[in-house]
Amino acid sequence: MEKLGLLYEGKAKRIYATNDEGIVWVEYKDSATAFNGEKKATITGKGRLNNTISCLLFEMLHEKGIDTHLVERISDIEQLVKKVAIIPLEVVVRNVAAGSLSKRLGLEEGSPLASPIIELYYKNDELGDPLINEDHIKLLHLASMLQVNEMKQKAQEINTVLTSFFDEKNVRLIDFKLEFGITTDGTVLLADEISPDTCRLWDKETNEKLDKDVFRRGLGSLTEAYEQILERLGGSSCTK
Amino acid sequence: MEKLGLLYEGKAKRIYATNDEGIVWVEYKDSATAFNGEKKATITGKGRLNNTISCLLFEMLHEKGIDTHLVERISDIEQLVKKVAIIPLEVVVRNVAAGSLSKRLGLEEGSPLASPIIELYYKNDELGDPLINEDHIKLLHLASMLQVNEMKQKAQEINTVLTSFFDEKNVRLIDFKLEFGITTDGTVLLADEISPDTCRLWDKETNEKLDKDVFRRGLGSLTEAYEQILERLGGSSCTK
Ligand SMILES: Nc1ncnc2c1ncn2[C@@H]1O[C@H](COP(=O)(O)OP(=O)(O)OP(=O)(O)O)[C@@H](O)[C@H]1O
Ligand SMILES: Nc1ncnc2c1ncn2[C@@H]1O[C@H](COP(=O)(O)OP(=O)(O)OP(=O)(O)O)[C@@H](O)[C@H]1O
Ligand SMILES: [Mg+2]
Ligand SMILES: [Mg+2]
Repeated sequence: MEKLGLLYEGKAKRIYATNDEGIVWVEYKDSATAFNGEKKATITGKGRLNNTISCLLFEMLHEKGIDTHLVERISDIEQLVKKVAIIPLEVVVRNVAAGSLSKRLGLEEGSPLASPIIELYYKNDELGDPLINEDHIKLLHLASMLQVNEMKQKAQEINTVLTSFFDEKNVRLIDFKLEFGITTDGTVLLADEISPDTCRLWDKETNEKLDKDVFRRGLGSLTEAYEQILERLGGSSCTK
Repeated sequence: MEKLGLLYEGKAKRIYATNDEGIVWVEYKDSATAFNGEKKATITGKGRLNNTISCLLFEMLHEKGIDTHLVERISDIEQLVKKVAIIPLEVVVRNVAAGSLSKRLGLEEGSPLASPIIELYYKNDELGDPLINEDHIKLLHLASMLQVNEMKQKAQEINTVLTSFFDEKNVRLIDFKLEFGITTDGTVLLADEISPDTCRLWDKETNEKLDKDVFRRGLGSLTEAYEQILERLGGSSCTK
């Protein structure tokens, strides 16, 4: 596989074309951002940790019958994935109140939710990724209602698998964000990443935060927290 | 009908008990508030205008086959209504982008929407009436999904009737907020008010604002704007 030109640089990753039309080359960066880019830092090792953790989780999901964009991890900070047209929605699944849900509904951080809830955010940095509903999605033609229902359905399944997987590792999956894309044949595929950048992960015994809130709230060493997660998930077992 | 004790005082109205268990006495106040109570004023005549306009619109809706809580207008600033348990949701219907929708989705104020959209807000002043979705509604037990669908269905019908009614009066119905309540027999009934406080109403020719945005944005005399609306709707035809 050949790495060709840079297609897109995001806050956490660079996406390069390859000599295969259907595949892109993802490079995880060592940068951390929060509050829509207001807080920024370079954190050595973060790219490797997220690349490895996301690869490991996507492989586990694949084994459980959930298709993902992952093709293979090719280095500490790089992976090949199927190229998709990203649907500009962030699909957030929550099991426990935290972050913006706590603020929105006045729920104490840490209160378990009776059943998982799903929120859809418009993936748009200029607008600050606002919460939206299905009428907004139709209005802006962000996705069809069929696609929205498919994403929600998959998000529920992924939540079930991830929650029990993390639970076995003594980690509570509080909430997480998914992105889906459309493949060339029109199917909806899980894309982007699942990592401590995109999940809230708390230690099951102590409720210690092992995710990006460590950075957002200045709670200590981000790489130590992410290393904790990688270790509990079985280390670099997914390295090629 | 006897006016008994004050049951509740809101920002715009006072609700009194009556000697009839099923009926409450509503007194419209001369106070204007905006931005969740941050901006406040006393505006002589506002109570009379909203009481009269809301009564007139609810009577018109009743004639078109849409049930409402209105029993009768009993003075310039008072009306009797069926007592309901208010569902703590604000049902917002929008035909044209304005206000928070423009901000949320980055749409220019005044852009017509391809079809009407509905938003649900959690009626909770402390939380600033946040936008919510159906999972949030289930989580907080704010309403059943049957009730939510009924409210949305009714809101669409009301929009159709109101839009054409205002159009005949050379007024554009940009958006509006509804509240519904549950009657003693469990049905979902249109309640609260429909007035220039709860609608955006623009002159059809000039797009002049004839609603609470005149107060919110300091655009001139609120009572002149509301008088305009009352006049166009046929004046005090609904006075007892
Ligand atoms: N399989 C894929 N094909 C194409 N693009 C993808 C794929 N997976 C993820 N992406 C996109 O790669 C981009 C870079 O990721 P990164 O996480 O750095 O972006 P971001 O800064 O978080 O968000 P933004 O999309 O706003 O730039 C994102 O837009 C993401 O949606
Ligand atoms: N038919 C009804 N039966 C009982 N309560 C009603 C009825 N119609 C409206 N209400 C309620 O009367 C209250 C007073 O109205 P008002 O508009 O002053 O309240 P508000 O300040 O806008 O809102 P809040 O409800 O936050 O006080 C509101 O809570 C409204 O929901
Ligand atoms: Mg990202
Ligand atoms: Mg009110």
